Amino acid sequence: MELHQKSLTDAERIDWLRLIQTKNVGPRLFAELLSRLGNATQALEALPGLVRRGGVRRKFTIPDRQRAETEMAALGAIGGRAIALCEPEYPETLAAIADPPPVLFVIGDVSRLSAPSIAIVGAHNASSNGRRFAENIAAQLGEAGFVVVSGLARGIDAAAHTGALASGTIAAIAGGLDVVYPPEHEELQRRIGETGAVVSEQPLGTRPTARHFPARNRLISGLSRGVLVVEAALKSGSLITSRLALEQGREVFAVPGSPRDPRCRGTNDLLRQGAILTESAADIVDAVSSQVLKYRSPERPLVLLQPIERKEETEPTLDHEKIIELLGATPTGVDELVRECHMSAAAVQSTLLELELAGRVERHPGNRISLIL
Amino acid sequence: MELHQKSLTDAERIDWLRLIQTKNVGPRLFAELLSRLGNATQALEALPGLVRRGGVRRKFTIPDRQRAETEMAALGAIGGRAIALCEPEYPETLAAIADPPPVLFVIGDVSRLSAPSIAIVGAHNASSNGRRFAENIAAQLGEAGFVVVSGLARGIDAAAHTGALASGTIAAIAGGLDVVYPPEHEELQRRIGETGAVVSEQPLGTRPTARHFPARNRLISGLSRGVLVVEAALKSGSLITSRLALEQGREVFAVPGSPRDPRCRGTNDLLRQGAILTESAADIVDAVSSQVLKYRSPERPLVLLQPIERKEETEPTLDHEKIIELLGATPTGVDELVRECHMSAAAVQSTLLELELAGRVERHPGNRISLIL
Repeated sequence: MELHQKSLTDAERIDWLRLIQTKNVGPRLFAELLSRLGNATQALEALPGLVRRGGVRRKFTIPDRQRAETEMAALGAIGGRAIALCEPEYPETLAAIADPPPVLFVIGDVSRLSAPSIAIVGAHNASSNGRRFAENIAAQLGEAGFVVVSGLARGIDAAAHTGALASGTIAAIAGGLDVVYPPEHEELQRRIGETGAVVSEQPLGTRPTARHFPARNRLISGLSRGVLVVEAALKSGSLITSRLALEQGREVFAVPGSPRDPRCRGTNDLLRQGAILTESAADIVDAVSSQVLKYRSPERPLVLLQPIERKEETEPTLDHEKIIELLGATPTGVDELVRECHMSAAAVQSTLLELELAGRVERHPGNRISLIL
Repeated sequence: MELHQKSLTDAERIDWLRLIQTKNVGPRLFAELLSRLGNATQALEALPGLVRRGGVRRKFTIPDRQRAETEMAALGAIGGRAIALCEPEYPETLAAIADPPPVLFVIGDVSRLSAPSIAIVGAHNASSNGRRFAENIAAQLGEAGFVVVSGLARGIDAAAHTGALASGTIAAIAGGLDVVYPPEHEELQRRIGETGAVVSEQPLGTRPTARHFPARNRLISGLSRGVLVVEAALKSGSLITSRLALEQGREVFAVPGSPRDPRCRGTNDLLRQGAILTESAADIVDAVSSQVLKYRSPERPLVLLQPIERKEETEPTLDHEKIIELLGATPTGVDELVRECHMSAAAVQSTLLELELAGRVERHPGNRISLIL
């Protein structure tokens, strides 16, 4: 089964939605479940058994189909769509990141998601100069055929969207598509949906909290060929977005500013670290035109392996307890774990997947794992 | 004869002064004459013959000794000194450039010329922010043990000198030591001479004109381990200084600024070309502390070769006319000339030296030469 560019039926899409909305299932675990079990429908059926084997005693029911159908209808009612990672309309740049959202909710012109795009982000408390710069360069990038992506925040984000409204800009938001944050951007969000697109990976009704913003930031950089940072203090959210961009193999651009303005410390620091100095749209167009798209036609992260052999037992086996014993609160490398527990790598991975679904272990970057105490 | 670090007698120093003040003799030709004729006194004696062989028909008298002695006395009267390139007090960093002034005039503390130094240059019409930045960073560099070098111009230069007054700053000026330009910096120039030093390669009484400033700029960078540019428009004098610094193997530092301010275009462009981004003195101290001084203990550019054999004839010979015939207004490579004229390289060089002294040919960078029509 080739998951790349396969359109789903409505029923299949409902199952994708149910699976990603399952407790303890994030983008990475979703991909692992699909690669082991073939498709979302089969993964959902296998869930109760996997969770029990992972050590959860109470009854586990798979997420409600009715509820997912209701959500999909509500999405349709506000003019939204859900696009699955395997579908041709899913943006290729976003599909190429390590943890793409399995389902992306979109209001607006879905075709804008596949046009070459540049993210513009920066300080919420931006200077008047910074806002004007962002608005102008966004307009220029729009005229040059780029879609401007940003996060609908106050300051630089809002200025960038405003400058690029005419050319169709993309807002990646942290909450549900029917939630406006910050509230004063209601009109702006509506207008973006008319000429461009508003995207989110969160279910309708989700009010954004602190944990949603870093996830949203990876969408901003993931949707883009490069990220331009216009005014950013040290340790600001924009710098997180630029770090994610680098991890995703995207270009980072930064606008220089006076050392006397704390809002330029972050951008100057990016320049010191090798970001491309940007004074006008030409600086960006020049850099991305000569860019070799590392993420072009990638192998999408969902690759189907042989489905695991489903064992009869549903109770935790000796394997699970052996691994639990070896783990602690400090993350341990999975490779190390495999060496220490005298099990095959495949058996360790299956066991970890079940423990993760059961909420007993946590994944960390660098293929490391820790016990949730 | 070893020209490196040899103190001169007063009479010898007078002859150095007479030779460099001879018509058509600049720093490079001065070095060539010394290397061919052994010392300034012998070079002066040979001059009339060389000039006649170069094709000047009118009577040539060597520069007047009395006049040079008077100038030296006038220099002493205002507290100044003349330091020759071969003397131990001549700053090593300046001696290492391609065309060091053979004689440097100094008022103030000569020992400051040999301390580690950083030049600070920038726009004359600098912003208030830029001036404050220059003054603060100059003070910090002074506290960190660096001598701040600048050009006594309006704007950034004046701010840098002011900030570094307490630690002893060096002003390299375009006119004579007894001329103040711009006039409003009379008090500043006097104060610099008290705690630091004012240097010039021009004779007393010289009023600076356009041609003196690029020559002065090479002194600023030549005296320094690195040049910091604070605010500079595109195509400004500060960018010339930074280009000279690169040619001299010195580090270039630049302060980032808003793309909306034309006074930051030049500095941002330097950053794009690889200048070190500078927000505080620490950025400079870090960079030069780890610097390998390429110009440390260099072979001084004056190396004595065998004196040329003095021919009897004083009239232009066939050689001279052959070379004149091959040259035109467009610069030609000397190597090419040697190949075309069927003379030895040494003979071509001697002939060119005579033609140059006679004001008939002009040297260009890259060992090229053109006819003065």
